[in-house]
Amino acid sequence: MIGEPQPVRHPGVFRHPVVMRWGDCDPAGIVYFPRFFERFHDAMERWFEASLGVPYDALITERKLGLPSVHTEADFRAPCRFGEALVVELRVPRLGRSSIELGYRVVAEGEAEPRLRGRTVCALMDLDPARATHARAVPWPDDLRARIESFGVGVPGPA
Amino acid sequence: MIGEPQPVRHPGVFRHPVVMRWGDCDPAGIVYFPRFFERFHDAMERWFEASLGVPYDALITERKLGLPSVHTEADFRAPCRFGEALVVELRVPRLGRSSIELGYRVVAEGEAEPRLRGRTVCALMDLDPARATHARAVPWPDDLRARIESFGVGVPGPA
Amino acid sequence: MIGEPQPVRHPGVFRHPVVMRWGDCDPAGIVYFPRFFERFHDAMERWFEASLGVPYDALITERKLGLPSVHTEADFRAPCRFGEALVVELRVPRLGRSSIELGYRVVAEGEAEPRLRGRTVCALMDLDPARATHARAVPWPDDLRARIESFGVGVPGPA
Amino acid sequence: MIGEPQPVRHPGVFRHPVVMRWGDCDPAGIVYFPRFFERFHDAMERWFEASLGVPYDALITERKLGLPSVHTEADFRAPCRFGEALVVELRVPRLGRSSIELGYRVVAEGEAEPRLRGRTVCALMDLDPARATHARAVPWPDDLRARIESFGVGVPGPA
Repeated sequence: MIGEPQPVRHPGVFRHPVVMRWGDCDPAGIVYFPRFFERFHDAMERWFEASLGVPYDALITERKLGLPSVHTEADFRAPCRFGEALVVELRVPRLGRSSIELGYRVVAEGEAEPRLRGRTVCALMDLDPARATHARAVPWPDDLRARIESFGVGVPGPA
Repeated sequence: MIGEPQPVRHPGVFRHPVVMRWGDCDPAGIVYFPRFFERFHDAMERWFEASLGVPYDALITERKLGLPSVHTEADFRAPCRFGEALVVELRVPRLGRSSIELGYRVVAEGEAEPRLRGRTVCALMDLDPARATHARAVPWPDDLRARIESFGVGVPGPA
Repeated sequence: MIGEPQPVRHPGVFRHPVVMRWGDCDPAGIVYFPRFFERFHDAMERWFEASLGVPYDALITERKLGLPSVHTEADFRAPCRFGEALVVELRVPRLGRSSIELGYRVVAEGEAEPRLRGRTVCALMDLDPARATHARAVPWPDDLRARIESFGVGVPGPA
Repeated sequence: MIGEPQPVRHPGVFRHPVVMRWGDCDPAGIVYFPRFFERFHDAMERWFEASLGVPYDALITERKLGLPSVHTEADFRAPCRFGEALVVELRVPRLGRSSIELGYRVVAEGEAEPRLRGRTVCALMDLDPARATHARAVPWPDDLRARIESFGVGVPGPA
C-alpha cells in the first residue's frame, strides 16, 4: 500500500465536541473556568460509553463503582469565548492498579496550540455497601482494564 | 404602649441574603436567570433549618422525605447585576395536604419593587423503599405541618 | 399520492438532544430542576443557529440585540435520571412585536407524555449604547421576524 | 504580658463559610468537584471586598482590571457531603509582579486535616480597550499591592 494516503487515525484519543454556551460565560465574555471541569467530566462520561462500551451510569448504578477525583488541574493558555465550537480531547496517560489519569486538551479547529490543558486523577471506588471493600479503592476489574488498554494508554501525543 | 414605635416584624417571611457572584452572571453582566432557581432552592434549604428547625439534609437522609418541584415559575422585572447584595424572601402562600407552595421575591435594600418574583410548588415524596408509600406523595407529618403553620402560611404581604 | 403514507414532518419544532450528566443530577439521582432552564436556553441558542441561520452569539455581539427572559415556568411530570438520553423540543407559540414566547417539552423516545413542559417569554432588547433605543425593548427586525415566521409560529401541536 | 494566653490570630488567612447545598451534590451524595472551583472563586471575590477593601466588581467595572486564572489545581482528600457547613480558607502564598497565587483549604470544624486543598494562579489583566496595555498582563497598582501585602503574603501556615 506504499504511496497510498493512510487515513488519519487517533488511537488513544477521544474527541468530545462542545459549544461554549451563554450560561458558561462570565461578564468578561469568556468561559468561567470551573465550567471546563464540568466539560472534562462530561467528556469522560461519553468516553466510557462511546470508547469503552460501558455507559457511565451503568458503571455506577449497576456495577456500583465510582470514580471520584483525587487530583485535578488545568493550565489556561488562551480564553474560550461565547459561541465557540471547540473539542475536548481525552487521553489516558496512565492506568494504575485502582486509579486512572485522564489528560484533556481543549482545542479549536485549525489552531496549533490548545486553549487549555487539564489532567485529572481518579480512584476506582467500591460503592456497594454489601461488599467488604465498600468505600475503598479497588483494582480495575479485568474487563474494564482490557477495554481501557484497548483504547490506548500512554499513547505518545501532544503534550 | 400607645405611641411607642413597634419593631417591624415580618411573620411568615424568611430572608436569605445573597451576593451575585462572577460565576452567576452572563456576558451581558447580569445574572443568568437559571441561577435564581438555584438561589430559591438554597433559600428553601436554609429556611428548613433556620425557621423550621429541621436541617434539609436531615429531612432527606434521616426522615427519607423529598420535596421535588412539580411547578415553578418566575417573573423578571429588573436585572440583577454582578456584585449586588440582595435578599431572597421566602413566604408560604399555601400548605396542602402533601404539597407546599413557596413564594419568592428577590429584593434590593431601599427599592420599592422586587427585581423578580418566583413561585414553586413542591410535593412531599416518600423516598424510603421500605415503606408502602415509597415514591408516592405523602401527607405532611404532624410535626412538620405544625412547624410550617407556626412560621406562617398565607400571611398577607406584598404580591 | 392518495393512500401513500406521508413522511412525518414536524414544522415548527426544533429538537435538541441532551444527555443527563452526572453533574446535572442531585443526591436523589434525578436532574436538579434548575438545570432544565439551562437546557432550555441551550436549545434556544442552537435553534437560532440551526433553524434561523443566525448564530446566537452574532445576534448579541454583532447585532447587539439581547433576549432577556421576562417570564419562565415549567411543569414537572416525571423525573429525568442520570444517563438518560432525552430531547428538548422547542416551539414558538407566539411572536409579539418585540417579544417571543418559546415553548419547551422534554421528551423520551417512545413515551407518550413529556417528562416536563416549559415556557419562556423573552423581550428583544437593544444592547447598543450608541442607539437611542438602548436598554429598551425594540421591534423584531424584519429579517429576523421573517425567519422565525418561516420556522413556524403557533403551529398546532401537543399541549 | 508574659504568661498570658494570646488570642489565636490568623494573619494572612481569610475564612469564607459555605454550606454544601443540594444542587452542589451529585447522585453519590457528595459535592460534584467542579463546584469547589466556584467556591474558591466566590471566596476570592469576598476576600477582595472584606480583606482588601476593594469590591471585586469595582476592580473589574471601575478599574477595568481582570484576574483570569492561568493555572488551577486541587487535591481531594475526603468527600464533602450534602448539608455540611465548611470553611474555605484563602491564603496568598505568592504575589508576583503581575500575578497572584491563591491557596485554598476546605476545612471542617474540629478536623485536623482539610477535606481538600487547592491553588490558583491568576494574572492581572488590563481590560480597558482605551489603554495601551489592553488585554495584556499588567503590574499590580501600588495601592492594591500594598493592600495584599498588608493582608499577608507567604505567611507560614498549614501546607
